[in-house]
Amino acid sequence: MSTTAESQPSAGSLDAGRLQTFLDGEHAQIRERVRAFMSQPEFAPGETSLPKDEYRERVLAWTKAVADAGETNLGVPVEYGGAGNVGGTVAAFETLAHGDLSLLVKFGVQFGLFGGAVLHLGTREHHEQYLRDIFSLELPGCFAMTETGHGSDVQSVGTTATYGPDSQEFVVHTPDESARKDYIGNAAAHGRMAAVFAQLVVGGESHGVHCLLVPLRDRKGRPLDGIRIEDCGEKLGLNGVDNGRLWFDNVRVPREALLNRYGSVSPEGEYSSPIENVNARFFTMLGTLVQGRVCVGGAGISAAKSALTIAIRYAARRRQFGPPSGDEEALLLDYRMHQRRLLPLLARTYALHFAQERLASEFHKAFTETDYSERDRRKLESMAAGLKSMATWHATETIQTCREACGGAGYLWVNRFAALKADTDVFTTFEGDNTVLLQLVSKSLLTDYRDQFGELDPLGMVGFVAGQVIETIVERTAARELIGRVVDDLVPGRDEEEDLLDRSYHVKTFSWREQHVLTSVARRLKRGIDDGLDPFEVFNECQDHVYTLARVHVERLILDAFADAIERCEDDDLRPVLDRLCSVYVLEEMQRDRGWFQEHGRMSSTRAKAVTRMLNTLCTELRADAPALVDAFGIPDPVLAAPIGLREDPGSGR
Amino acid sequence: MSTTAESQPSAGSLDAGRLQTFLDGEHAQIRERVRAFMSQPEFAPGETSLPKDEYRERVLAWTKAVADAGETNLGVPVEYGGAGNVGGTVAAFETLAHGDLSLLVKFGVQFGLFGGAVLHLGTREHHEQYLRDIFSLELPGCFAMTETGHGSDVQSVGTTATYGPDSQEFVVHTPDESARKDYIGNAAAHGRMAAVFAQLVVGGESHGVHCLLVPLRDRKGRPLDGIRIEDCGEKLGLNGVDNGRLWFDNVRVPREALLNRYGSVSPEGEYSSPIENVNARFFTMLGTLVQGRVCVGGAGISAAKSALTIAIRYAARRRQFGPPSGDEEALLLDYRMHQRRLLPLLARTYALHFAQERLASEFHKAFTETDYSERDRRKLESMAAGLKSMATWHATETIQTCREACGGAGYLWVNRFAALKADTDVFTTFEGDNTVLLQLVSKSLLTDYRDQFGELDPLGMVGFVAGQVIETIVERTAARELIGRVVDDLVPGRDEEEDLLDRSYHVKTFSWREQHVLTSVARRLKRGIDDGLDPFEVFNECQDHVYTLARVHVERLILDAFADAIERCEDDDLRPVLDRLCSVYVLEEMQRDRGWFQEHGRMSSTRAKAVTRMLNTLCTELRADAPALVDAFGIPDPVLAAPIGLREDPGSGR
Repeated sequence: MSTTAESQPSAGSLDAGRLQTFLDGEHAQIRERVRAFMSQPEFAPGETSLPKDEYRERVLAWTKAVADAGETNLGVPVEYGGAGNVGGTVAAFETLAHGDLSLLVKFGVQFGLFGGAVLHLGTREHHEQYLRDIFSLELPGCFAMTETGHGSDVQSVGTTATYGPDSQEFVVHTPDESARKDYIGNAAAHGRMAAVFAQLVVGGESHGVHCLLVPLRDRKGRPLDGIRIEDCGEKLGLNGVDNGRLWFDNVRVPREALLNRYGSVSPEGEYSSPIENVNARFFTMLGTLVQGRVCVGGAGISAAKSALTIAIRYAARRRQFGPPSGDEEALLLDYRMHQRRLLPLLARTYALHFAQERLASEFHKAFTETDYSERDRRKLESMAAGLKSMATWHATETIQTCREACGGAGYLWVNRFAALKADTDVFTTFEGDNTVLLQLVSKSLLTDYRDQFGELDPLGMVGFVAGQVIETIVERTAARELIGRVVDDLVPGRDEEEDLLDRSYHVKTFSWREQHVLTSVARRLKRGIDDGLDPFEVFNECQDHVYTLARVHVERLILDAFADAIERCEDDDLRPVLDRLCSVYVLEEMQRDRGWFQEHGRMSSTRAKAVTRMLNTLCTELRADAPALVDAFGIPDPVLAAPIGLREDPGSGR
Repeated sequence: MSTTAESQPSAGSLDAGRLQTFLDGEHAQIRERVRAFMSQPEFAPGETSLPKDEYRERVLAWTKAVADAGETNLGVPVEYGGAGNVGGTVAAFETLAHGDLSLLVKFGVQFGLFGGAVLHLGTREHHEQYLRDIFSLELPGCFAMTETGHGSDVQSVGTTATYGPDSQEFVVHTPDESARKDYIGNAAAHGRMAAVFAQLVVGGESHGVHCLLVPLRDRKGRPLDGIRIEDCGEKLGLNGVDNGRLWFDNVRVPREALLNRYGSVSPEGEYSSPIENVNARFFTMLGTLVQGRVCVGGAGISAAKSALTIAIRYAARRRQFGPPSGDEEALLLDYRMHQRRLLPLLARTYALHFAQERLASEFHKAFTETDYSERDRRKLESMAAGLKSMATWHATETIQTCREACGGAGYLWVNRFAALKADTDVFTTFEGDNTVLLQLVSKSLLTDYRDQFGELDPLGMVGFVAGQVIETIVERTAARELIGRVVDDLVPGRDEEEDLLDRSYHVKTFSWREQHVLTSVARRLKRGIDDGLDPFEVFNECQDHVYTLARVHVERLILDAFADAIERCEDDDLRPVLDRLCSVYVLEEMQRDRGWFQEHGRMSSTRAKAVTRMLNTLCTELRADAPALVDAFGIPDPVLAAPIGLREDPGSGR
């Protein structure tokens, strides 16, 4: 499980093909099929960007081609002619994400969000009536949740759906400008129906947000009576997707339009739901969003892989400056700064890959295993929210760094960073704003914590983690650094260098950090509430701390998944490389957070400096394998398309 | 000079107009004129992006309008009918940078780079023949330095200019594909002449890189014989600028085409230069690039101001979530995380503003004062390189964070982030790649250091900074944290809270960090060289450390400039706010680097936690003034143009 800095394999001996097989995992066949499909010339990104309207039509045609090829069948339940392979859908989506991202988002809107709403919020009649047409793209539709006034706070949307028992219809209405539906994909041009989220009002009483199917356009594309549609116009990226705004002016839909899995209305106007509590019901319905988050996080990781593939191949060919003595200039990848900029991002991409693999597998279980508990489901939702946030921020950072690492060449449209950067930018705020999502993650941790310890009893809390008491004392003592060092020194048979590469030390350190932050956030919240302060204010006061909690929690999940993947890797040639990548991931994170570790007596200053040194050493060791490590992502040249980043050196200096 | 956390002014009492006057400084009139000029309807950014060719023509027309209005006259020497106001040029450029950035870059290429090359590298005859036509845009031209094979490493360009005494001409030639000129602004469509950087060969001997004027196109825009031009095509941003590639096939130009201020060739083919040493000559010529770096850094800061203006105004109007008890949702700007994301970036933008102001003033002196020494010039070049790097990275980070802070609205093209993000992206790598520039900064510091201490004598080094000896001992002692705390505690009459806001403590801390890193980098380099290792390898081994040196050096320069600006502010209402901003800038930097400070015994863990707490407190205090602080940037609504970011609330929810 651990390598020393000395056990370096011979340069570049890594077998990218075998590593790719390991990365592709159980859905390797699906990934290969999508790769081949996307390598067809008609999916090639153009030489230049397209004008918006033309781009939208091309993306519609591409989406249709994907549906025609049967690629959308994976996620459809077996009883409606599909493969019922939820995990496979995620793998397909991740692979599609190496290509044009407008196609990906159009695909996601139609099959994941619109189709997903019908599938997960609807019942048998809806399924029978719509699923086939949705998954063949016969019925292009929208997922109309976000409003101008309310994005992340879905619970407060203003659109209403009021039931009238006389006509047995719902009246869907936009009460004011802030309640117009906004940024809705498929709305500006192609959508014929929308899954509309609205406050359900029955007999004068509101039952919270529910989802109804509302027809938008006739077969010729003309908006129906009472429907107003506006184009959101050009965006920062994803201009092949037709985002628009929707207003409903007392639009009538039949009672059956309500997707009634979690709440239905009888013809006489009686509301009933399998979930009594309004809040619980809302979060259960929103839980169906988990698929979107799993997919967006995965797409972020794929985009990071695309960017790294381009930048690392470029750096392994491009020469600049170099020893005055030498005949040749030095390769960019041989510069320490270049290694330190790119290789930790590569390591983190691997770490996220394995975390995403685990998440997708959990997601698959949630929809296929009958004994999947409510608690498991909550954990899944939290993991999806957390990983989506970290993966999409990672994508933004990685693409930016890779662009800069390719200099002027990286700025040319043909080299793909333009599209990667613009198209992925919104990932950090759609399907839930990252900062909001991370607060959900923390709230879920704090809820579990409270459930375990009742009323946040301070005594119980302190004892929560083994050794927490002594740690807390150590931390509060001025001499704690000294003690910390003594304690470290007492661990037998380890010098500082070895420790740094010991996986169990990594896991212990990440877990300790998480537990420590959890305890102290809980303590702060409790103190504020005990002091009689307004809970909203108390929470807001701690918001930066709450954010830290989510971050360190997700890092621990990522490390767990990476460590597990290495455990299960049976290939003796691959394991040492994965092990080294994992250490780079861990040490980079420890380096970034070394202020915290020192503050909390978990890292001596000597150790902190050793982390930096070891990071340099590991990056130097990884350098020879770097090209194979990106080859293993398996992005076909026709899909990657960047002249400077092709597997085969194009020879041209372009 | 210091405020306590308690002395908060009444909410929002800050006078934005007075602050703007202070920020505008000595070139207030120029800034106001440019603002008014840019507010004309014809300069308004369109509702959507334009197709490339149309955009290029519009930008050309805009540039012509700027020249026609006499706005390009500022930088032209008085003897050629200009104002000779070098500092004013920078101010005008910074103000222009709130508008369309393709216009800015076209302007910079034509007047700054092409015009600057003729002005600074040419002599009287060149000035008389070309300056008027260049600054009126009668003669659009290129600055043809970068080649496909060599960007940052200009000294290695491959283009040759070989003198033939028989014809008294130079033959300009592109020997191979990697020597083609690349990414050259004005080349693809409009340039009629280029200032070409080439290896000067006279009598079979190379004299290093020189610059020659080479005609490219006739008056009808047709390429001349021997000139091949290719369009770089679409880019990530700045698509209103026509970047292209140039090849020269044995193109003949007269002897007078050589811009001969630093090297000339007699008709008989004798080379002479006022600067003997080839390296020194090269760096003197390259020194003329300093203007480009001063301007790009300034433009980065302006772009950050635009982004913050939009995001902070949006956050001060947009409500989301909020106390379940309250009638109204909470404003985004009242959330702690939102404050912590935006306000330190605002503080840093102010810090960079004052550092840029000082740099521009130094730059003005360099070109107007006769007793400006060689040493001053080197310092100026280093400061320009360092500030350009930090300012442009800051722009990238700020624009990204502001976009995310505006959610979906920030993703719409009309709200300006699309253009800001795409257009400024290349700032981090053009006019010198940031990582390369920062190494130049460090090299300059290390050279000064060596000059002061001869052969990097370790004893002299240790004594370099007062107290360094004792510090070094403290650092190496396991108990240093304790000692450090004791030393801190011995400073009379200060508790930890007060210390954190004491400007002299800030300055001392930043200076100490810089000196410490400088000493240790120097020591490492010396050790490596003493051990007989290859100097290139030794330097590469330390590259991350060298990078840190440059970073902490520039931070110290920024803090100095900010502290000075506060000193000279005579307005008792403004000073406390500037002071608070400066503390946020400092504490954010200390927080970010608290790992290092703890490692080096300069910050106890208690202090490190206090820094975070104080940062939260200061951000809360700043919140009320935040809208006025962006109003003071003085960006007119027609120039900013983002519907969500206008000074006047548009009322629409858009």
